[in-house]
Amino acid sequence: MREEFQAELTELSRLLVTMAEGVRAAMRKATSALLKADRDAAELVVERDVEINHLYRQVEQKVCDIIARQAPVASDLRAVVAALHISADLERMGDLAEHVAKTSLRRHPSPAVPAELRPVFKQMSEVADRMAEKITGVLAEPSVEGAKELETEDDIMDDLERALFKVLLSDDWPYGAETAIDGALLGRFYERYADHAVNSGQQVIYLITGEPVG
Amino acid sequence: MREEFQAELTELSRLLVTMAEGVRAAMRKATSALLKADRDAAELVVERDVEINHLYRQVEQKVCDIIARQAPVASDLRAVVAALHISADLERMGDLAEHVAKTSLRRHPSPAVPAELRPVFKQMSEVADRMAEKITGVLAEPSVEGAKELETEDDIMDDLERALFKVLLSDDWPYGAETAIDGALLGRFYERYADHAVNSGQQVIYLITGEPVG
Repeated sequence: MREEFQAELTELSRLLVTMAEGVRAAMRKATSALLKADRDAAELVVERDVEINHLYRQVEQKVCDIIARQAPVASDLRAVVAALHISADLERMGDLAEHVAKTSLRRHPSPAVPAELRPVFKQMSEVADRMAEKITGVLAEPSVEGAKELETEDDIMDDLERALFKVLLSDDWPYGAETAIDGALLGRFYERYADHAVNSGQQVIYLITGEPVG
Repeated sequence: MREEFQAELTELSRLLVTMAEGVRAAMRKATSALLKADRDAAELVVERDVEINHLYRQVEQKVCDIIARQAPVASDLRAVVAALHISADLERMGDLAEHVAKTSLRRHPSPAVPAELRPVFKQMSEVADRMAEKITGVLAEPSVEGAKELETEDDIMDDLERALFKVLLSDDWPYGAETAIDGALLGRFYERYADHAVNSGQQVIYLITGEPVG
């Protein structure tokens, strides 16, 4: 029974790793769509979000199977419930990548982001990418230290969002309200993506230490 | 055992109803803070969000207790997992009310919303309030019909958000980028609040019919 349970958990974490890889690829492609006004890339992100949602359902199904067949208690139960939370965060990260892609589609063939905002979005996307990579890593091999690094990255993301708003709200902003709104919403999508990565990391920490974080 | 399980489920749904009432009160007060630039109301929303988060943890604890002690299967298990999803949606609705309150605090003593946007925000808040009321109702007494009404309300919310953007993006928008960005983000907070209410309703439908929705 114990061995079987461990095998189930391994299968569950394999699904979560696949989800995390998927939402990482989604945000990379969405950023590329955004910065290069690449319509095909944007459409691919929207299409592929269906696969991420499908994985989310698979995780939920698997969690229910495990609970029903193995009746886990204590830390075993905590592990499967954590998997459910993590998959919900990852699913939302996929949605946020899709929002970025849809913003660039809405403005296509014009770029959604004017030239002087591209550097800050490039930096935000690099932080998002490192965070998705880290979350993939800690899901494959749980580590408190790895999960905590996500919070440091999240602070960098918050600083970048503040820098973005400073540009959007400067007195000599030349692009009008629509571009300012798109910029603010896009900034929020990256920042929320980072928040969900942090939440997933907190679930990993909770799982390892038994102490709820945050 | 069966009777005990039913009692546990009743206790769980009582917690969810309390959460739903809490997030309804939070958005009412946050809207009042927003439309009247009422600092005390806004601060109360921020303070009280802690209670909603605490209820969320209680639901999770309760779900784990039930699974560990009762080892539910099939539709019983589905019910407790649905409770977990619903509480996550409600917790997020509380956060969104808090975001509205914080936006009005950030602009205090100026109003965050100029006079001509107040009617649309008033309408959005009325839809949000009806949705929170409906979700409270279907949690107290599960009903597919009641849960489905949430989708009709959500369509109204989406129309209102479009109307809001039309004003924000009109050529003669006189308030500059900051007020446009605040307006867009606030619109999004109400719209997301409605989305999470719909998600909760879908969980109720899933629970009753056994068919996943959406």
